[in-house]
Amino acid sequence: MKLYDSKMAPNPRRTRIFLAEKGITIPTEQVDMMKMEHRTPEYTAVNPLQRMPALVLDDSTVITESVAICRYFEALQPEPPLFGVGAKEIALVEMWNRRAEINFFSNVAAVFRHLHPAMKELEVPQVPAYAEAMRPRVFWFLELAERELATRDFLAGDRFSVADITMLVAVDFMKPSRLAMPDNLPNVKRWHAAVSSRPSARA
Amino acid sequence: MKLYDSKMAPNPRRTRIFLAEKGITIPTEQVDMMKMEHRTPEYTAVNPLQRMPALVLDDSTVITESVAICRYFEALQPEPPLFGVGAKEIALVEMWNRRAEINFFSNVAAVFRHLHPAMKELEVPQVPAYAEAMRPRVFWFLELAERELATRDFLAGDRFSVADITMLVAVDFMKPSRLAMPDNLPNVKRWHAAVSSRPSARA
Repeated sequence: MKLYDSKMAPNPRRTRIFLAEKGITIPTEQVDMMKMEHRTPEYTAVNPLQRMPALVLDDSTVITESVAICRYFEALQPEPPLFGVGAKEIALVEMWNRRAEINFFSNVAAVFRHLHPAMKELEVPQVPAYAEAMRPRVFWFLELAERELATRDFLAGDRFSVADITMLVAVDFMKPSRLAMPDNLPNVKRWHAAVSSRPSARA
Repeated sequence: MKLYDSKMAPNPRRTRIFLAEKGITIPTEQVDMMKMEHRTPEYTAVNPLQRMPALVLDDSTVITESVAICRYFEALQPEPPLFGVGAKEIALVEMWNRRAEINFFSNVAAVFRHLHPAMKELEVPQVPAYAEAMRPRVFWFLELAERELATRDFLAGDRFSVADITMLVAVDFMKPSRLAMPDNLPNVKRWHAAVSSRPSARA
């Protein structure tokens, strides 16, 4: 088994944090996206979508998409549960992981991809007007999260889950995306301090 | 239990097809998105994100995001399995569902949202340049799917799964998005005919 990982990018970090929470270590190969190593013929043979990360199993099956890799390990080693237990919690974790991803992370990433000078060769064409259209949605979702986190410790309930991993990675990706965290979000701030203090956050 | 459904929109159709495959029927309320009924205070109280569909459980818990609703019913009634069985199949279904969603469905939707005149009041601001940037990615993914479907019956393997539901709904959403299906994709065409002929496709 081998994990293709990129230290700089947010999606591979989701998988690293997940594995750290599970206490799982696996052989890893670094792919430098700034050197376009994810666009080489070698890596394209692993993942034709040229995205990171990718997990190659011992039978040569390739699993891509950070959340799919996380689900693989959740099935192999259910404890501690990070995708919920029982129909209702499973649904709420999926709901919040998707809300954080579709309505927040993807908009932070849109600002990064379509405005950042470092992305000129990677996101072709950059559409700055799209970044500007998505920018207010980043702050809209943070205000929604502020109201939700007033009632509980974690995004999907009282237990840390993959939804918190997605949200943490996305919040931390605001900085390279040149999006400043507003000052008036005490519950988001409390949540961010709590999840950032977990040893997994350093993964 | 009650499902808020919209007959016109693609995401609610994912949930309807999933329920039809499971043979589950539940009380449903139609929300007319063309009449902006998903932006009313009543529906916003159900789903602050103003997106469709939404499932309200008997204890008043609200589950939104079509795939989260599907997972709720998969946990309640595992047969027939639509999210895979065993670590490897679970991961491959998640991978293909996400690939179909992130690299295809979202790009078809981008063309619809940012170009279609009917979306002028719903997608503010429309950024036509973003639609044009995403348009070639729709066809790029169809060519990838063509190569993959040469080797198997369904997107994630030999068994029909939620990934096929996502792909079917997205392919059918090309028409209102004014994207023509290319003629030279025999495997995609064979797959589309097969999944469209299932009774669930009429849901």
